[in-house]
Amino acid sequence: MNDQAPSGRAGRGGRDAKRAARLAAAAAHIPFITRNIPYYEVLSEEGLALIEHNADTVLEEIGIDFKDDAEALQIWKDAGADVQGERVRFPRGLCRSLVATAPREYTQHARNPSRSVVIGGKNTVFAPNYGSPFVRDLDGGRRYGTIEDFRNFVKLTYASPWLHHSGGTVCEPVDLPVNKRHFEMVYAHMRYSDKPFMGSVTHPERAQDTVDMCRILFGDDFIDPMTGKPKTVTTSLINANSPLTWDATMLGALKVYARNNQACLITPFILAGAMAPVTQLGTCTVTLAEALVGMATVQLINPGCPVIMGSFASSISMQSGAPTFGTPEPAQVLYIMAALARRLGVPFRSGGGLCASKVPDAQAAYESANTMLPTCLGGVNFVLHTSGWLEGGLTVSYEKFMMDCDQAGSFHALLAGVDISENGQAMDAIREVGPGKHFLGCAHTQANFETAFFRSSLADNNSAEQWEAEGSLDMVARANAQWKKVLADYVAPEIDPGVDEALREYMDRRRASFPDSNV
Amino acid sequence: MNDQAPSGRAGRGGRDAKRAARLAAAAAHIPFITRNIPYYEVLSEEGLALIEHNADTVLEEIGIDFKDDAEALQIWKDAGADVQGERVRFPRGLCRSLVATAPREYTQHARNPSRSVVIGGKNTVFAPNYGSPFVRDLDGGRRYGTIEDFRNFVKLTYASPWLHHSGGTVCEPVDLPVNKRHFEMVYAHMRYSDKPFMGSVTHPERAQDTVDMCRILFGDDFIDPMTGKPKTVTTSLINANSPLTWDATMLGALKVYARNNQACLITPFILAGAMAPVTQLGTCTVTLAEALVGMATVQLINPGCPVIMGSFASSISMQSGAPTFGTPEPAQVLYIMAALARRLGVPFRSGGGLCASKVPDAQAAYESANTMLPTCLGGVNFVLHTSGWLEGGLTVSYEKFMMDCDQAGSFHALLAGVDISENGQAMDAIREVGPGKHFLGCAHTQANFETAFFRSSLADNNSAEQWEAEGSLDMVARANAQWKKVLADYVAPEIDPGVDEALREYMDRRRASFPDSNV
Repeated sequence: MNDQAPSGRAGRGGRDAKRAARLAAAAAHIPFITRNIPYYEVLSEEGLALIEHNADTVLEEIGIDFKDDAEALQIWKDAGADVQGERVRFPRGLCRSLVATAPREYTQHARNPSRSVVIGGKNTVFAPNYGSPFVRDLDGGRRYGTIEDFRNFVKLTYASPWLHHSGGTVCEPVDLPVNKRHFEMVYAHMRYSDKPFMGSVTHPERAQDTVDMCRILFGDDFIDPMTGKPKTVTTSLINANSPLTWDATMLGALKVYARNNQACLITPFILAGAMAPVTQLGTCTVTLAEALVGMATVQLINPGCPVIMGSFASSISMQSGAPTFGTPEPAQVLYIMAALARRLGVPFRSGGGLCASKVPDAQAAYESANTMLPTCLGGVNFVLHTSGWLEGGLTVSYEKFMMDCDQAGSFHALLAGVDISENGQAMDAIREVGPGKHFLGCAHTQANFETAFFRSSLADNNSAEQWEAEGSLDMVARANAQWKKVLADYVAPEIDPGVDEALREYMDRRRASFPDSNV
Repeated sequence: MNDQAPSGRAGRGGRDAKRAARLAAAAAHIPFITRNIPYYEVLSEEGLALIEHNADTVLEEIGIDFKDDAEALQIWKDAGADVQGERVRFPRGLCRSLVATAPREYTQHARNPSRSVVIGGKNTVFAPNYGSPFVRDLDGGRRYGTIEDFRNFVKLTYASPWLHHSGGTVCEPVDLPVNKRHFEMVYAHMRYSDKPFMGSVTHPERAQDTVDMCRILFGDDFIDPMTGKPKTVTTSLINANSPLTWDATMLGALKVYARNNQACLITPFILAGAMAPVTQLGTCTVTLAEALVGMATVQLINPGCPVIMGSFASSISMQSGAPTFGTPEPAQVLYIMAALARRLGVPFRSGGGLCASKVPDAQAAYESANTMLPTCLGGVNFVLHTSGWLEGGLTVSYEKFMMDCDQAGSFHALLAGVDISENGQAMDAIREVGPGKHFLGCAHTQANFETAFFRSSLADNNSAEQWEAEGSLDMVARANAQWKKVLADYVAPEIDPGVDEALREYMDRRRASFPDSNV
C-alpha cells in the first residue's frame, strides 16, 4: 500500500510538470476496491428470513404513503397494488419480484474512463461527506459552507488516492441561492475532478439540469450504443421520509433519474426510536419495506435501471433524543441490511465515518472507526460520508476529511485480504533467520517491505522525544498542514475547452431563465 | 446497557453509605461477557491448515532455543524431542498432542466469588493496560509511573463496570526498587480491588511470592477440595523471546505458576519484519510455533494446568522501524490466530486498545478502535490492554483509560447480539405508529428505551451551541474530569483485617530478607 497525496510529488510550474502530476495521480489510484475477505454476518438465516417476512407484512397490512404524487399512485395501481387515497398496500412478494430486474452491479461511468466504478458485487466505492451546511477547520472554526469550500472538497477528493467517487453535496454552498446552487455544484464535480459524481435531488428540474449537463459533458458518449439508453453517469441520493412515506420531491427526482437510466440510491433515513422501533429488527424491517418500494418504483418506471439499497440508521440519546453515532446497535443494523441486500441481489449503501463529535477529537475517531470497520466487514458497496463528517453530518471538517481519507487507505489493505502464496508463507525467511536473530535484513523482508504494510500519512509512530522535538503536534494539527499542502499542489484534470464552454453557457442560460430564490 | 461509574452514586461518609456503594457497584457489574454473535473469520480452512502445517515444519526442522535452562531441556528430552545443545526440535504433532490436556476454558477465581471469570469458550474478559513505565495525564503531562499511579489504575479498574479483571503491571512503579516492586503491586490488586488479577513474572522468586500471597489471601479456600490442587487464582503473562526462543526468566516464572496450577498466558511478541517475516502467514506461523511449545511445556510440568494462547503482533514503520498500531495487517493476524486457537481448543489472548500516538487524540482513538473491534469480532477471550495504552505501550494515560473503558462498555452491547424475539421484531409498534408518525411515544419505545442503546458516559451528542455553552470540551477534557471524580468517589472493597495483616507481615518479612536492587 502506498502513501497519501501523489499530487504532492508534482513540481509547481510548467505544463509538463502538471501533466506529469496528472499521470502520477492517475497511476497511484485504483478506481475501486474488490474485496478479497469474507463478509461479517451478525444474524442467522432465521433472523434474516424473519425480517423479510415482516417487511412483506408491513407492506401488505400497513402500506406506504405516497405524498402529493398522483403519477406514482397511478403507477402502483397499474402494477397491482391496493391504492386507497395516498396509502398504497402491496401484495406479498410484489415489490421483491419487481426488484428482480435491478442489476446486481452496474458501472457508473466517469469522464475519465479509468475512474469509472463498478458498484455492487464484491466491490467497495468510497465517496466523501454529503450534505453538511457547516464547514470547520482548525484555523477558522465553524462557519457556513460556501461554493469555495465545495470546490475545495471536490479537489481534496480528487487528490486522494483512497476516494473513488467525487460524491455529491460535499458541503452546502450556502452563499448561492437555493434554487441555483446545483449548477455550480454539478459543474465543480465535472470541472475540478474526473471521478464519478452524484446529481441534484432537491427538485425534479434540478435533477433534469444534472442529466442535461451530463449530456454535454459526455457528448456522443452519453448514449450507450449497445442499449440505446443513456449510460449511467450519475448515482443520486433518494431519501425516504421515514417511516413508510415517500414524498413528491424525492419521487420527482427519482422519476427523472429513472427515466434517464441514472442510478438511484434509495435510502430510508432512520433514527431508531423516532422513525422506527428502537430495536435492530424493527429498524431493519422498516428500512427494508421502504427501500423495497423505492427500488420497485424505479423498476416500474425503467426496468433494469440501476438502484442501490441504502440504509442510514442511528441510535438516539436517551437523555436528549439527539442522534448518536459509532454505537453498536446501528453497526448491527448495518451488518443485517448488508446481508439482506445480498439476498435481494442489489448493491448496498450504508456506513461512513459517522460521528456526533463537534471537533475531530478522540470521540470523532472512535465513532468513525466503529462505523467504518463494520462498513468494510459487512460489505457496503457504496460508502457515502467516508471522509469529513462531524456533528451528525451538520459539519464537514477539513482536518477530519484528511484523517478519514488516511483511514480509507488502511481499509484498502484490510479488504485486499491475506496472501497465502509461498511468498506469503515465508518459510524460506524463517529457515534463513532461525531462532534468536532478526528478520529486518533477510531477503524476504527486503523483497516485501515496500508493500507489506499500509503506511499512514498522518499517524505519528516516532518516539515521544522526537514527537516533542517536532512540536508535539496532534493528529488534527498534522491534518491541517496536509490539506493545505494538497490544495496548494492541486492540479485540475484537463477538460475539452469546448465542453467547458458549453457547460458554462448552459448554466448561464438556465440561471437567467428564472429568478433567484431560497426555497 | 447502563451508564459508567456506579461508585459515583455513593454518598461520601459513613460505613453504611460505603457498604451501600459496594453493593451498588457489585450489582452493576457482569463478571465477564459471553458472546452472542458469530466470530469473524478472515482466512479459509485451506489457509489455516497451511499455517498449522508450516508451524509443525518449523518445530521439526528448525526448532526452538531454550536459553540457560537445563531443566527445560531435560523435560523436553524426556518427552521425546530432539535436543542438541540449547536447540530443541519436535516431532511433527508432538506439541499439539501435548496441548490436548489444556482446558478449553477455566475459571480464574477472584476473592469476591461474584467477580470470578471464566476464560475461554465464548467468553470475553477485559483487563486494563499492562507494563508501561510512563504515565500521562492532561494536567501533568508525561512522567515515570509510581506506586501511587499503580494504585490509582487498580482503583479505576475496580470502579469500571466494563473491566472484568484487575490486570497486572497496570504501570511500572518506578519509584520502588525493581526486585521488591512486585510486593506492593500484587498487594494493590488484592487490597484495592476484588477482581481477579495477574502475578509477577520478572523472576521465579517473584512468581513464588505471588503464589504465597495468594495462599494467604484465599486461605483455606486456596486448595480446590475436588482436585486437591491449588485453585487457579492468577493468570500471568509469559512472553516468548521471539523468534523461536524461550529464556530462563520467563521459563522460571512459567514453571512456578505451572507447578501451582496457575494459568500461564503464553504470548509470542512479534513486530512483523523484526521477530517474524513481514507477511501475515509468516507472522502467524512463528507465533503458533512458539505458543505451541510454551503451552506444551506447561502441560508437561502439570497436565491440565490452564494456559492461554497469546498473540501480540504489530507492523512496523517503513521509515523508522518503529512499531505501528491499528493497522490492518495485525488485525488480520488477530483474526487468524483466534481461529487457530479455536481449532486447537485453547483460550486466546490478543488485541486491546493499542496505539502509537503520544496523546489521546484522534490517532489514538482510530488505532485503538481498529484493534478493539477485531478483538471483539475475532473472538479474543482475554483482552489485555483494553484501556489506557498510548505510545506503543510505553505510556498509560489516565484520560485514555476512561475513554477506552467507555468503549469497552459499547463492546458489551455489540457482543450481546441481536434480539429476534417478538419484542425485538416490534411489529406491534410498527402497526401502532404507521406511516408519517414518530415512534418516540409509542408503548414499545417506552418499554424498551432504557435498555435499547448503549449509553456512552463520555461521548457528547449535544448541539454545537450547547457544547460551546458548556465550554467546548473535547473528549480528553471530559475524561480528565471523569477519572478525578471516580477516584474521589472510590470506596475500597472490604477485606478481612487478619488477612490484610498477614499479607503485610509476609511482605515486610520478605522485603527485609534481601537488599534492594534495581535488576
